[in-house]
Amino acid sequence: MLRSCAARLRTLGAPPAKPRGAVWRLFSSEKVIHKDYGLPNPSWSKDLRLLFDQFMKKCEDGSWKRLPSYRQNPIQTFKEFQTRFVDPRSITKEEQISKAQQFSRSLEEGLGFEYVMFYNKGEKRVVCLFQGGLHLQGVPGFVHGGAIATVIDITTGMCALAEGVAMTANLNIDYKKPVPLCSVVVVNSRLSKTEGRKLFISCDIQSIDEKTLYTSATALFIKLDPDKRLT
Amino acid sequence: MLRSCAARLRTLGAPPAKPRGAVWRLFSSEKVIHKDYGLPNPSWSKDLRLLFDQFMKKCEDGSWKRLPSYRQNPIQTFKEFQTRFVDPRSITKEEQISKAQQFSRSLEEGLGFEYVMFYNKGEKRVVCLFQGGLHLQGVPGFVHGGAIATVIDITTGMCALAEGVAMTANLNIDYKKPVPLCSVVVVNSRLSKTEGRKLFISCDIQSIDEKTLYTSATALFIKLDPDKRLT
Repeated sequence: MLRSCAARLRTLGAPPAKPRGAVWRLFSSEKVIHKDYGLPNPSWSKDLRLLFDQFMKKCEDGSWKRLPSYRQNPIQTFKEFQTRFVDPRSITKEEQISKAQQFSRSLEEGLGFEYVMFYNKGEKRVVCLFQGGLHLQGVPGFVHGGAIATVIDITTGMCALAEGVAMTANLNIDYKKPVPLCSVVVVNSRLSKTEGRKLFISCDIQSIDEKTLYTSATALFIKLDPDKRLT
Repeated sequence: MLRSCAARLRTLGAPPAKPRGAVWRLFSSEKVIHKDYGLPNPSWSKDLRLLFDQFMKKCEDGSWKRLPSYRQNPIQTFKEFQTRFVDPRSITKEEQISKAQQFSRSLEEGLGFEYVMFYNKGEKRVVCLFQGGLHLQGVPGFVHGGAIATVIDITTGMCALAEGVAMTANLNIDYKKPVPLCSVVVVNSRLSKTEGRKLFISCDIQSIDEKTLYTSATALFIKLDPDKRLT
């Protein structure tokens, strides 16, 4: 059953927020300790911390849930995904698996993507609180369009993942205002419709005071089918 | 005149390819030596080197031109851009300017975006030869949708830049097949239409043998107007 895929369980089924430095191990034989990046670090601005605290408050009644976030997949999860969905001829080489890193977590603390996501199951919504660091620059002083697209992809992707293991099929992004480097913005995504394996998700990026709409987007995700290999 | 903007001159008006280690200085007072990242490095696979050589051959008659690529803007270019287009209240702080880096060049050699772009003025085309490193991962074993969007943004952006200083207004991306990590793909973009300040650009990503279409996209760029501030 798709819903049992370890990668999915690891994100949406993980326990509620733990103190900084919280760790998890999927298999007891694994030595690697995985850091949860969806928790405050010294690079977070006051704005990001305040928003984080507000959403953590919303988590207390169980309506919202903080989503943990890791830089690497456990090797077993990686292999499980590839065995289920990837053509055997395209399986990633063993020596590469341990070196692969989640793109949105691969830059140094504070310089790249600083974010935390919260999920509301009842409303089928994911909110991402995002602070774009100095190494995400596009035109001088502003976050790169590709970095904005990445944040939209991860946020809508998490919304899709709640429904099953899925991959991005389309992103349609309107860039309305450029996002200044080092500012904090709120990314709102919501599942708007499902049609068979298709998941339609809307997403916008706003300023903290909701007065500025930076970006609006739609995303289409397709739930994966083990009978249809990815490559 | 917009076409004289230093940022634009620096990319499209730069001299033809020089040997590895080529440097440039926009202002003689600047001490920083900027490395050109659009040249082979040890992380480049045989496929990427072969394609690079093929395109360098095409440059010999002047129809194609290799575009140099840097990690940082010279401080003067940064300031010039902001003075022209940014609301004075949103100007980036002095101490941040020197630390900001171009997103697509901010990961370590071989682990992130390895690419080189070539421009054909007559055909209004930009081709990007791209190898996605292990730190660009999305689903296990494949390049992140956000990293693909980034490559599309930089390639179509360069196509737009040939017409004037412009910013992304829309990206519409169809992800048809996932791109395996560490593989080399060819990104083709072409200016299809202009309407006033609007530049319509098409883009697709294919395998080297052109048998696999990974992604197709359209981009809309808007030429900047110094009378209309960005923020």
